[in-house]
Amino acid sequence: MYQNAAIIAEQVGGTVEGDPSVMIHRVGSLDQAEPGAIAFYYDPKYLPHLFVTRASAVFVSRELVLSQPVITTLIRVEHPYHAFNTILNRFYQESLPKAGLESPHFIAPDAVIGENVYIGYNAYIGKGAKIGKGAKIFPHCFIGENCVIGENTIIYPHVTVYAQCKIGNRCIIHAGAVIGSDGFGFLKDKEGNNIKIPQLGGVILEDEVEIGANATIDRATLDETIIRKGVKLDNLVQVAHNTEIGEQTVIASQTGLAGGVKIGKNCMIAGQVGFVGHIQIADQTQIGGQSGVSKSITEKGKIMRGAPATDLKTQLRSEAVFRRLPELLERIETLEKLLQQQSQS
Amino acid sequence: MYQNAAIIAEQVGGTVEGDPSVMIHRVGSLDQAEPGAIAFYYDPKYLPHLFVTRASAVFVSRELVLSQPVITTLIRVEHPYHAFNTILNRFYQESLPKAGLESPHFIAPDAVIGENVYIGYNAYIGKGAKIGKGAKIFPHCFIGENCVIGENTIIYPHVTVYAQCKIGNRCIIHAGAVIGSDGFGFLKDKEGNNIKIPQLGGVILEDEVEIGANATIDRATLDETIIRKGVKLDNLVQVAHNTEIGEQTVIASQTGLAGGVKIGKNCMIAGQVGFVGHIQIADQTQIGGQSGVSKSITEKGKIMRGAPATDLKTQLRSEAVFRRLPELLERIETLEKLLQQQSQS
Amino acid sequence: MYQNAAIIAEQVGGTVEGDPSVMIHRVGSLDQAEPGAIAFYYDPKYLPHLFVTRASAVFVSRELVLSQPVITTLIRVEHPYHAFNTILNRFYQESLPKAGLESPHFIAPDAVIGENVYIGYNAYIGKGAKIGKGAKIFPHCFIGENCVIGENTIIYPHVTVYAQCKIGNRCIIHAGAVIGSDGFGFLKDKEGNNIKIPQLGGVILEDEVEIGANATIDRATLDETIIRKGVKLDNLVQVAHNTEIGEQTVIASQTGLAGGVKIGKNCMIAGQVGFVGHIQIADQTQIGGQSGVSKSITEKGKIMRGAPATDLKTQLRSEAVFRRLPELLERIETLEKLLQQQSQS
Repeated sequence: MYQNAAIIAEQVGGTVEGDPSVMIHRVGSLDQAEPGAIAFYYDPKYLPHLFVTRASAVFVSRELVLSQPVITTLIRVEHPYHAFNTILNRFYQESLPKAGLESPHFIAPDAVIGENVYIGYNAYIGKGAKIGKGAKIFPHCFIGENCVIGENTIIYPHVTVYAQCKIGNRCIIHAGAVIGSDGFGFLKDKEGNNIKIPQLGGVILEDEVEIGANATIDRATLDETIIRKGVKLDNLVQVAHNTEIGEQTVIASQTGLAGGVKIGKNCMIAGQVGFVGHIQIADQTQIGGQSGVSKSITEKGKIMRGAPATDLKTQLRSEAVFRRLPELLERIETLEKLLQQQSQS
Repeated sequence: MYQNAAIIAEQVGGTVEGDPSVMIHRVGSLDQAEPGAIAFYYDPKYLPHLFVTRASAVFVSRELVLSQPVITTLIRVEHPYHAFNTILNRFYQESLPKAGLESPHFIAPDAVIGENVYIGYNAYIGKGAKIGKGAKIFPHCFIGENCVIGENTIIYPHVTVYAQCKIGNRCIIHAGAVIGSDGFGFLKDKEGNNIKIPQLGGVILEDEVEIGANATIDRATLDETIIRKGVKLDNLVQVAHNTEIGEQTVIASQTGLAGGVKIGKNCMIAGQVGFVGHIQIADQTQIGGQSGVSKSITEKGKIMRGAPATDLKTQLRSEAVFRRLPELLERIETLEKLLQQQSQS
Repeated sequence: MYQNAAIIAEQVGGTVEGDPSVMIHRVGSLDQAEPGAIAFYYDPKYLPHLFVTRASAVFVSRELVLSQPVITTLIRVEHPYHAFNTILNRFYQESLPKAGLESPHFIAPDAVIGENVYIGYNAYIGKGAKIGKGAKIFPHCFIGENCVIGENTIIYPHVTVYAQCKIGNRCIIHAGAVIGSDGFGFLKDKEGNNIKIPQLGGVILEDEVEIGANATIDRATLDETIIRKGVKLDNLVQVAHNTEIGEQTVIASQTGLAGGVKIGKNCMIAGQVGFVGHIQIADQTQIGGQSGVSKSITEKGKIMRGAPATDLKTQLRSEAVFRRLPELLERIETLEKLLQQQSQS
C-alpha cells in the first residue's frame, strides 16, 4: 500500500486538513511513528504527542478542537480508531503472500484445491483434503487426510491439522498450533498399566475462529471437539477432547480446558485459567487470570476469580483479609489473653 | 475396517443379538452415532439412548435385561467398554499410514532404517540415527544425530528430537513436541551477565511412553532426563533437565517440572501443576490441578492440593474458611468491641 | 573433541596430577561418568564419589587436600566448575552442524546469506531476509520476509520467525519457538462479534538472547515487542504484544506476560507466573513460581510471591496462617462461647 492522504481519507469517509498529497506507506503510533506513517489520536492523555508527532498523517475526531497548530496532516473521521483499524487491515492483507504454489510441495492426487489458493513451500496436503478458495497455507504446514479448510482461511507455518478435522471460512491459525491431536484418555489394566483409549472423533472449527501460536486442540474420543464461530484463542491455550466453546468467546494465553468442558457464548476468559473436566459455563461469563474453575457456572454474565473460582467481589474481600491473616491471628491471641486474665481475676 | 457384526463379535468373544450381517465401518457414541457405526452401552444413565440409537450395533453386557425391544443389533460381551476399546484400537491402527517412504525425505547415509517403517514427506533422519522396525515418522519431523527410535513408535508431524536422544518401543509422540532441547541453566559472570551452561546430557524415553502435542522435554546438563515405561504426558507439559518420571505416571496438560525433580511410579498429576526443582515425589501420589509442589513428598499414596501443596483434607478445610474470611474478621471485631465494653463497664 | 588431559589442562590454565596422556572425549558427572569422560569436583558433599569415579579426569580446586589416593587423573584449577563449563562449551560448539547448505532448501533470490552459514534441509529464507555470518539455521525453519538474523545465532528446527522480525547476534532459539505471531487484540462490533485488530508491529531480540522450545513471542500491534540483551526465556513462555523485557532478565518455563508489560533488568522470574497487562516491574525484582502479578512494582530488588503477588515475607506469613484457618475459626467460636457464657452469668 502506498497512497496519499486524500485517497485514504476517501476510503474511510474522512476529510483532510493539511497536505492531501502526503504519501503514506506504513502505520505507527502517535509517539513512535516515523515520516510516511499514519497514526490516530483519540485519548486526550496523548494530546501532547499530537503536536510533535512525526507521523505524516493522523486520524482525529471531527469534533476535535485544536488549541495550537499541528505539523502533521489530519484526517477527520467519526471514529478515529475504527478508521485506523480499517487501514491496518488493508496493510495486513497486503502483507500476506499472493495466491500461487511454491515448489516443492505435497498435494495428494485426490486433494481438492480451490481457486486463488496459496500453498507454501513444503506444505503437505493429505489424501482427500479440500482447501477452500482463497485459503493461504504457509510453508511447512501439515494438513492431514480428509481435512476441510474453509475459504480465505490463513494457516501460518508449522501448523499440524491431524486427519479428519474441519476448519471453517476466514479462520486464522497461528504458527505451531496443533489441531486434532489425540485426547488424553487411558484405562488401567489389571497390572495398573496405562492402556490408551484411541481417539477417533474429530475437531470442528467454525467460521472466523483464530487460534494462537503453539495452541493445542485435541480431537474428541468419539463425536467432535467444537470451537464455535468467532471464538479467539490466544497462544499456548490447551483445549482437551470433547470440549465445546461457544460463539465469540475469547480465551487468553496458557488457559487450559479439561475434557468435556462446555463454555458458553461471549465469555471472556483471562490467561492461565484452568477448568476441570465436564463442567458447563454460562454465556457472558468473565473469569479472571489464573482462576481454577471447578464447578459449573449456571447464571449468565457472572464475573469470577480465584481458585476455586468465586464471585469476584467475594474473592476480592477474602484476598484482602488473606493479606491480614498474621494480624488476625494476633488479635485472636490478644482476645484469648484478655479473657484468660478476666477469668483469673 | 469394514466388517459385519458377526465377525466383530467373534473378535471380542461376544454373541450377536439381531442382524449378524449388518456392516460396521466406523465408531460412535450411543446418542450421536450414525448408521454404520458401532457404539457401547454400560451406564444405566444412558439407557434411553439405547432404544433410539442410530448405531448399527452396540456392545452391551451379557447380564443386561431389556425392558423393551431395541432396533439396533446387540453384541453381548463381558465388559462392553473394553470390547469397544479393542475395536477402537483396530480403527486407530488402520487410520495410520502404511509402511513406505514418501519423497522427498532426508535420510543420512549412515542412518539405519528398520523394516516396515513409514517415513513421511520431508522427514529428516540425521547421521547415525536408528529407526526401529514398524516405526512411523510423519512428515516434517526432525530426528537428530545418533537418535534411537524404538519399534512401532509413532512420531506425528513437526516433532523435533534433538541429537543423542533415545525413544523406546511403542511410544507415541504428538505433533510439535520437542525432545532434547537444552536445559535452562546459566551462570552469572562478574558483570552480572548470564553465561550459558551448555547442556550435553541426553533424554531417554522408555517403552510405551506417550507425549502430548507441543510438550517440551529438556535434555540433561550431563547424564540423562528419564521418562520411564508407560508414562503419559499431556499437551504442553514441561519437563526440565535431569528430571525422572517413574513408570506408569500420568501428568495432565500444562504441568511443569523444574530441574532435577524425581517423580515416583503410578502417580496421577492434574493440569497446571508446578514442581520446584530437586524434590522427590513418592509413588502413587495424586496431585490436584494448579497445585504448587514446593517440598518432597515421602509418604506413598498421598492426595495433595494447593499452593503450597498440602494434604487434600487440610487444604479443603482451609479453602472453605478462606471463603469466610471477611466474616471471620467481623466476628473478631465484634469480640473486641464486646470485651472493650466489658472493660469500660 | 578428542584430547589428552595435558592439553585440556593447558586450555584452562590447570596443572595435571596423574596421567597427562589419558584421552578425553566426553563429559560426565562425578558419579555417573564413564571412562573417557572428564568431570568436576567442588562440593564436599560429593567427596566419596571422587575416590571411586570412573571419569578419566576430574577438575578439582588447587587448594584441595586429599585424605586418600584417587584413581582418576586430577586437573587442578582455580574454579573447577568454571573450567568444566569452558570444556562443556567446546563440546557444545563441536556438536553443532558445520557451515554449509543442505539441499533442498528455499532461499529467496534477494535474501542475503552471510559467510560460514549453515542452512539445514528444507529451511525457508523469505524475501529480503538477511542471515548474519556464522548463523546456523536448522532444518524445517521458517524465516519470514525481511527478517534479520544476527551473526553466530543458532535457530533449532521448526522455529517460525514471522516477517519483519529482527534477531541479534549470538542468540539461541530452541525448536518450535514462534517469534512474531499476531498480538491478541480484538474489538467488539455492534453485534458483539470480535473484530481482529491487525498486528503490524515487529519483534526485536537483541544480542545473546535465548528463547526456549515452543515459547511464543507476539509482534507488537504497532511499534515493537523488545527482548533486551542477554535475556533468557525458558520453554513455553508466552510474551504478548508490545512488551519489553530488560537486559539479563531470566524467566522460567510457562510464565506468561500480557500485553504492554515492561520488565526491568536483571530480574529473576520463576515458572508459571502471570503478569496482567500494562504494568512495569523494577530492575532486579525476583518473583516466585505461580505468582500473579497484578500491579506495577516500582522499588528495585524486591522479592515477591503469591497471587496477587506480595512481598515474600508477608506472603509466607499469610500462607502459614492459611494452613491454620480451621483452627482460627474454632478459636473464634470458643471465644464467642466464653463471652456468651460470661454475659449470661
